[in-house]
Amino acid sequence: MAGLADVKAILFDTFGTVVDWRSSLIADFSAWGSVRYPGADWAGLVDAWRGAYAPSMDAVRRGTRPWTMLDDLQRDSLRELAPRFGLETLAADDAEYMIRGWHRLDPWPDCVAGLTRLKTRFVIAPLSNGNVALLVNMAKRAGLPWDTIFASELFRHYKPDPETYLGAAKLLGLAPGEVMMAAAHNHDLHAARACGLRTCFFARPTEYGPLQKRDFAAESDWDLVAVDIEGVAARMGV
Amino acid sequence: MAGLADVKAILFDTFGTVVDWRSSLIADFSAWGSVRYPGADWAGLVDAWRGAYAPSMDAVRRGTRPWTMLDDLQRDSLRELAPRFGLETLAADDAEYMIRGWHRLDPWPDCVAGLTRLKTRFVIAPLSNGNVALLVNMAKRAGLPWDTIFASELFRHYKPDPETYLGAAKLLGLAPGEVMMAAAHNHDLHAARACGLRTCFFARPTEYGPLQKRDFAAESDWDLVAVDIEGVAARMGV
Repeated sequence: MAGLADVKAILFDTFGTVVDWRSSLIADFSAWGSVRYPGADWAGLVDAWRGAYAPSMDAVRRGTRPWTMLDDLQRDSLRELAPRFGLETLAADDAEYMIRGWHRLDPWPDCVAGLTRLKTRFVIAPLSNGNVALLVNMAKRAGLPWDTIFASELFRHYKPDPETYLGAAKLLGLAPGEVMMAAAHNHDLHAARACGLRTCFFARPTEYGPLQKRDFAAESDWDLVAVDIEGVAARMGV
Repeated sequence: MAGLADVKAILFDTFGTVVDWRSSLIADFSAWGSVRYPGADWAGLVDAWRGAYAPSMDAVRRGTRPWTMLDDLQRDSLRELAPRFGLETLAADDAEYMIRGWHRLDPWPDCVAGLTRLKTRFVIAPLSNGNVALLVNMAKRAGLPWDTIFASELFRHYKPDPETYLGAAKLLGLAPGEVMMAAAHNHDLHAARACGLRTCFFARPTEYGPLQKRDFAAESDWDLVAVDIEGVAARMGV
């Protein structure tokens, strides 16, 4: 079985693993919306919106909904949730601003430095359920130095469908064992390992704020467990 | 009609436009193969190989051959051409080395500096008939600072099929008029303009060496004509 010495590319989950969606969105919407929507519960909305994320993708994954990219899933979820969080009068333009908030997320403090180190020796790319435009816009704003972008949109399958992990490896011309999936979510790594990829875990224990209930630690013998992306770089010798 | 002020992303043809395939391959193969294959005509082989490039893609574009990525088209062309250029005994491993030569091409001198400037304000990406792995490997070796990689492989269509130009714009979430195609080949720009993209030409008059017969100058009123990619950056105000 191939070990870490064979790894040529490292793919990163993004929401939660690379970017701090919760703090970013709450800060963004609170500053932007305080006058427009003074009665809004921004933290409640953001947590509920993220809660709707997996179920909305699951409808696509089960085939009960045709392929729909993440921006469009987020639009539907927001429309449904807004009235419950003081946004009964949310204007269409303002909803678009909020959906684009997912393109404007801030990275965790170790990301740019860690990725820049890893890029010197490895192909680095997101493998994310975000769409291409979202990931390109996020990377440009945050300075994430990806070599390329792998979005579920390219495969018309959402993670954890195997088509995503295997599709990215194939596009890179690499065997699954030459590719390592890095994520702060154990379930993502279980799916990647089932496809033959190497696996790398680091915790983001504040991702969900006070609501975080899982992923405080590695729950399996992943190939690499580090404290953050700088720690991954150190372990990979760059 | 949208003008250059609306451009948000610039897509670059690669072979010939960004990288000097002819000088790179002849130098690479001559140095590598002088002992292995002393009777080889490397310049002749490289010119003939490039000559086979468009016809091999046209078979896919016409539908007489199912989707086949560029590395595999190049393998078939090399097998056919090798005996005519002193490579009757070309070993399979050596053929793979030569096919991978297309992943190791050197950029023209203005590219890294020009693209780095353009990246500060625009999304920059290749839109190439090369496959994803080829373009990723090329970019890492040459230091091309792409934001993402658009390869025909993602669309299962080769340029100049409209699915490539329109597919890249759609993945970026942009209207065709917000995307500019940059190329040293007039025919590429004719196809991009027919899809509604902005167009940018600069000549690479030594691309084909002594065999160059066309593309010494802009042959239409492209939206932007510059001397090279640094010139494009200057014209775009970065």
